Amino acid sequence: MPERKRIAIIGVGLIGGSLAIRLHEKKLSSKLIGVEADKEHAQKALELELVDEIMGLDEAIANSDVIILAIPVDKIVQLLPGILDKIDQQIVLDLGSTKLSLISCVKDHPKRKRYVATHPMWGTEYSGPQSAVRGAFENKAAVICNAEESDEDAVTWVRAMYQKIGMHLLEMDAAAHDLHAAYVSHISHITSFALANTVLEKEKEDQAIFELASAGFESTVRLAKSNSAMWAPIFMQNREYVLDVLNEHIAQLERFKACLEKDDDQNLLGLISEANKIRRIIK
Amino acid sequence: MPERKRIAIIGVGLIGGSLAIRLHEKKLSSKLIGVEADKEHAQKALELELVDEIMGLDEAIANSDVIILAIPVDKIVQLLPGILDKIDQQIVLDLGSTKLSLISCVKDHPKRKRYVATHPMWGTEYSGPQSAVRGAFENKAAVICNAEESDEDAVTWVRAMYQKIGMHLLEMDAAAHDLHAAYVSHISHITSFALANTVLEKEKEDQAIFELASAGFESTVRLAKSNSAMWAPIFMQNREYVLDVLNEHIAQLERFKACLEKDDDQNLLGLISEANKIRRIIK
Repeated sequence: MPERKRIAIIGVGLIGGSLAIRLHEKKLSSKLIGVEADKEHAQKALELELVDEIMGLDEAIANSDVIILAIPVDKIVQLLPGILDKIDQQIVLDLGSTKLSLISCVKDHPKRKRYVATHPMWGTEYSGPQSAVRGAFENKAAVICNAEESDEDAVTWVRAMYQKIGMHLLEMDAAAHDLHAAYVSHISHITSFALANTVLEKEKEDQAIFELASAGFESTVRLAKSNSAMWAPIFMQNREYVLDVLNEHIAQLERFKACLEKDDDQNLLGLISEANKIRRIIK
Repeated sequence: MPERKRIAIIGVGLIGGSLAIRLHEKKLSSKLIGVEADKEHAQKALELELVDEIMGLDEAIANSDVIILAIPVDKIVQLLPGILDKIDQQIVLDLGSTKLSLISCVKDHPKRKRYVATHPMWGTEYSGPQSAVRGAFENKAAVICNAEESDEDAVTWVRAMYQKIGMHLLEMDAAAHDLHAAYVSHISHITSFALANTVLEKEKEDQAIFELASAGFESTVRLAKSNSAMWAPIFMQNREYVLDVLNEHIAQLERFKACLEKDDDQNLLGLISEANKIRRIIK
């Protein structure tokens, strides 16, 4: 069992708050310190007892063994180099959904080896400390990227932490992560946002449109409730891969469109049968 | 409470089978007769006691008070006129996801008034009698189209039946139904099929892609498991409206693409904030 540590969580929202619950539950923390720019969120995180104390960033760094960044990826780029400037032997990790941009922003930093780049593949469409839940992360994948660029002791603790909270580990380089994340996470969010906009646009002239909304609609549009401050920077940082996948997705939609335009039901059946092969993956 | 009737269900799959369970549970049927072209499905429907008996179509018509079509919409177009040819005073209704094509295929039929065009807005991504479930349809919307073209007694029974199984009624003309269904159901299926194809295409060169598949991906791709024999005819019959919505959806995706290409994070934030308004609709 890893030794309990004083852990600072920068950003006590959905992700940071849910991780705080889990770190305490699994006896990984001797103290949980929250750093939170939003005063109401800070207050709420204390009320909900997600963290023991709220501190300013510098004070939190001075009083912790591990520093976890659970803020939007654009904010990580802004804060991470300065945090590495200030640490001594602390472990620093981030939970962001992109990895290439984050790693490259501290590539030549003298303390680079104290930083571990990770992405625990868990989230919901809600945000803020009031959305933090028990049992988060369990049975999901945690990705650690470019582990060879981090100190062994730091990676060892991060691996143990993720395993202790019930995640299975995957290690890969940052480019592979960002490509895969574009395919199995980022594009889902874009299609969901775009679908919401498609239907909301129609609603302006047709108020009745949602009376018929079915469970299927709800399932495909659920992610469209996701926070813009979190997702816009993810798409921007992962722009190249997201554009590749988005172009492919639009091409796939055009194939359906062509079948409808040409009244080609044989090819339409074929496209759907192809898609049905997802049954292998999603039970 | 409506009088119990002898009810024939044409097509004892997911929808017909789930309705059969519910008709029995709510004491709406004195006898449930299944008509099923697929021999294995017929056998399974008897084994699961979804229906009391399997009959041929003509025998079923002769021995029932109500005939419910729960087969793909292309098959309804093929069978419905012939069924109306053979009935006397029975009530005939369909559960299909399109309404304009079905109504128009019997528009001038002398027995048109015995037919009630309906669409109970419930389903899952599975199919066949083994996928039939208890508690289906509850708290969902049932649409009745062009009720004024049907006999009063027939519409009255159909309304009472849907209310008894826990659905709320919506009445509208067939064109409004087909337009709304394109927006809140059909397009969700197309985006999900296309997303599955996008990712499966990539998987051909990259076997690891699904190791990271998250709950968000699962949610947006779930409908891609849906049956092609059911969905291809729906898209074809509702081609005009589905194409309109598909064009609009592709245009919305192009707006995301333009933001990424132009590095325009302000407009990207705006698009996501717009999409977030779906929170009003989907809690």
